[in-house]
Parts: sequence; structure tokens; C-alpha cells
Amino acid sequence: MKLYIVGFGGGSRDGMTFAAEKAIQKSDLIVGYTVYAELMKKLFPDKEFYSTEMRREKERVLYALRKAENKTVALVCSGDAEVYGMAGLAYELSWEFPTVELETVAGVTAALSGGALLGAPLTHDFAVISLSDLLTPFDKIENRLRAAAMADFTIVLYNPSSKKRADHLKKACGILLEYRSPDTVCGAVRNIGREGENGTVMTLAELRDYSADMFTTIFVGNSETKIIRGKMVTPRGYKDV
Amino acid sequence: MKLYIVGFGGGSRDGMTFAAEKAIQKSDLIVGYTVYAELMKKLFPDKEFYSTEMRREKERVLYALRKAENKTVALVCSGDAEVYGMAGLAYELSWEFPTVELETVAGVTAALSGGALLGAPLTHDFAVISLSDLLTPFDKIENRLRAAAMADFTIVLYNPSSKKRADHLKKACGILLEYRSPDTVCGAVRNIGREGENGTVMTLAELRDYSADMFTTIFVGNSETKIIRGKMVTPRGYKDV
Repeated sequence: MKLYIVGFGGGSRDGMTFAAEKAIQKSDLIVGYTVYAELMKKLFPDKEFYSTEMRREKERVLYALRKAENKTVALVCSGDAEVYGMAGLAYELSWEFPTVELETVAGVTAALSGGALLGAPLTHDFAVISLSDLLTPFDKIENRLRAAAMADFTIVLYNPSSKKRADHLKKACGILLEYRSPDTVCGAVRNIGREGENGTVMTLAELRDYSADMFTTIFVGNSETKIIRGKMVTPRGYKDV
Repeated sequence: MKLYIVGFGGGSRDGMTFAAEKAIQKSDLIVGYTVYAELMKKLFPDKEFYSTEMRREKERVLYALRKAENKTVALVCSGDAEVYGMAGLAYELSWEFPTVELETVAGVTAALSGGALLGAPLTHDFAVISLSDLLTPFDKIENRLRAAAMADFTIVLYNPSSKKRADHLKKACGILLEYRSPDTVCGAVRNIGREGENGTVMTLAELRDYSADMFTTIFVGNSETKIIRGKMVTPRGYKDV
């Protein structure tokens, strides 16, 4: 049968694509991380759900693959199905389930929905980096921060903080400040597409002392990013053509 | 009144978010690049449209802003509204239109929809780079390619080719090959979300000789990206936890 790995955006129907909605409607069973499964239950109250807590990703994906041998299953991810989502793991574990067809259904990741809320920070080249060192050594993260800062990418930081790593954002800003002006325009977005959604524009120096939580996405402008009408905007150059 | 800058995805209703559909429905006038306006006309046949050709971005956005002084207007972009789209320019030009409220509506950019088609290349940190040197000097593009290659980002290349710059992809691959193995798993996706949509997986050495057009998006894996069941998959590390 079939396993859809579906990115559903922020959690409201508005942030979801028609294809994501269709894939979930076609599925007999919806599998996901508890917090996200709860969001989907509100939109699809008649569906059967199976959810597990964080850090149980492998178990959850194996469960979805096993069930997909006999029914149509949607493995749901917030934002996009790929970007720090479950699509990669589903493919990695799919060897043992040759009869299950996999289909990735893309969604609006926090870089895009958060960017839209802030204005238009991502109009030019950008890099997306997770500050979580649960699965990636911090020196690899540091290398990527340096490279992105040096080459003047606009940078989007996912997972800027958690209980275990409260100082990662401060550390990351310290690295970026070696290459970028403290006045670089930055932004933080919380609870994108959910209740309590809000975006704040600040400088890189201010970002260093910003207190992010695990539902925050961070934006660091490139050298040309500016504030226009209170919004964070990166010019692409069209204006001067 | 209001100007929505709307990313509509690939061009089908499936690839569009509910919010994008709503914003277009609420608008009295839809403004866009001719090719994209034609796609939207099929989905919204009763709407009034205004379109201009490529390279007329400033004129088009000024027209949309001017009209938005008296009615609700949607400025439509393929993919996302920000990523190489019109949201930045709309903000830049909005100074002269203080009564016009702007709202960016995010969409699924080609990196995400193309990635989904290829499998799951974007599960870890990635960089998005346009190879178009119309508005960006090529040495800046080259710097970004080097930085992204060095720090082992998965890389997505937009605008890999056009009539004027047929050799940009070859040049870019040459730069990447200084840092990355010729066996690096790569992918190319054409006409995402439109008729004739197709994805191909290949090596970086093969990509160097690949003939891309302006509707192609290119994916270069990181050092861990592999082929699983014919798909391009970047592991994030969950499997080995």
C-alpha cells in the first residue's frame, strides 16, 4: 500500500497545501509526534491517529511503515516533510517494506512562513541551519555558520534553543558577529501559523541576548537586508535595474 | 487597500496553500509575469488579470501597488513569494504607497516541491543559490558556491541556465568538484508541479554535463546523501540513535 510523508505547514488549514489535505483525507491512519497529531486531530476529527513523543522517531516511522503494508498511512510533519522532518528516515527504513510505496508531500517550512510574517527576508540566496546538536556535532554546525556568514547568505536558524542547550543561539551569534556587523537586521518568529504567532525585528547584537524557545525560528539578514515599514526586507536588485 | 504578494507553488491547485487560494479569491485584480498569470487564469477564470513579460518586474510591481490604492490586488509568484520572487521588491517600492497594506503569503518553493519529487534530499542543513548573474555579480555567486561546498551543505541551485548563460551549471559544478566527490548524489527536476514534471538522479560528475533549462532546479547532495530505491535521500541521523 502507500505511505505519504506529509508536511502540513504551521498547523492551520490555511498553511496547508491542497495536496497535503488530500493525502491526509485519503489515508486510513495518521501517524505523528504527539503535539502535531493533536493539531491534525482538530482538522481531521474523524481519522484514526497514532502518536508518540519526541525522540521516538525511529519507532514512530517503523510503525507507520508496518501499517502501510495493509492500509494507506500519512506520516505527518510540521512545516515541510523533508526539512528536519521524517521523509529521509522513512526512506532509510523502507528497505524492509518493499511493498510500501512512499510519496513525499511538500509543505511550507518555517523559513518560508516565518519569512512571510517578517516581510521578505529570503528574496536572495539563503542557508538553513539547525542549531540542534542531538544528531550533529557542534563543530559541524559551527563550520556551517562560519561559511554562511562569510559568504553573506541570509541565514535561517531552526531549533535555536531547548532546555538542554539554552546558550546555542548566543554561541551562534558570537560566531556570526566575527563576520557580520552587529547592526545586521535580524528577526525572530514564534509559533508560526499557530495561536500566539508573532514576529520581532532586531539587530544581530540584540539577537545575541534574545531568549528563544523550541518554537522559535531565527532570521539573520545578509549585508543588504534592511527594515522597511517595520518589516525585514532583503533587496534582490530589481529596484535598480 | 491591500496588496497580497502570493506564492502559488508550481501552478496546480494541489501545490497551492489554502491561504494562497483565499488571497487570490479575495482580490479584485491578479498581477503577474505572463507565464504565471496564464497558469492562474486556468484556476481563477473569473478574475481580472494584468501581466507583463520577464525583466519588467519593477513596472509590474508598481502597477500592482498603484492599483492596490483602490482595490485588493494579488501579485502572484511561482513557488514562494519571497524566494527569488516579488515580495522584496514590493516592500522596496511601497514607500510611495503608504495607504497600501502589504501581506506576504508563503508558498512551496521549488527546493521543497522538487525535493519531494526526488525523495528526501533536504532533511538536513541546506543552501539555496541562484546561478543567475543578471542582478548578482558572478564572483559573489562563486563565493557562495565555495562556502556551501566547503561546509558540506546540501545545495539547491535555481536558474541553472538560460540562453545567455548556458555554461553556468558547468562552471558551478567545476567549483563544487574542487571540494566534493564526483560521486556526490545529485538530482535535477523539471517543470515541478506542471505538465511534463520529472526528476532525475545522477552524480556530480554527470551533472556537470547535464543540460538544464530555465525550468530546471538542481540538487547537490551533502557527503552523506545516498540513493535509496532510486530516490535521492539525505540521512539526518535518526536511524542510528
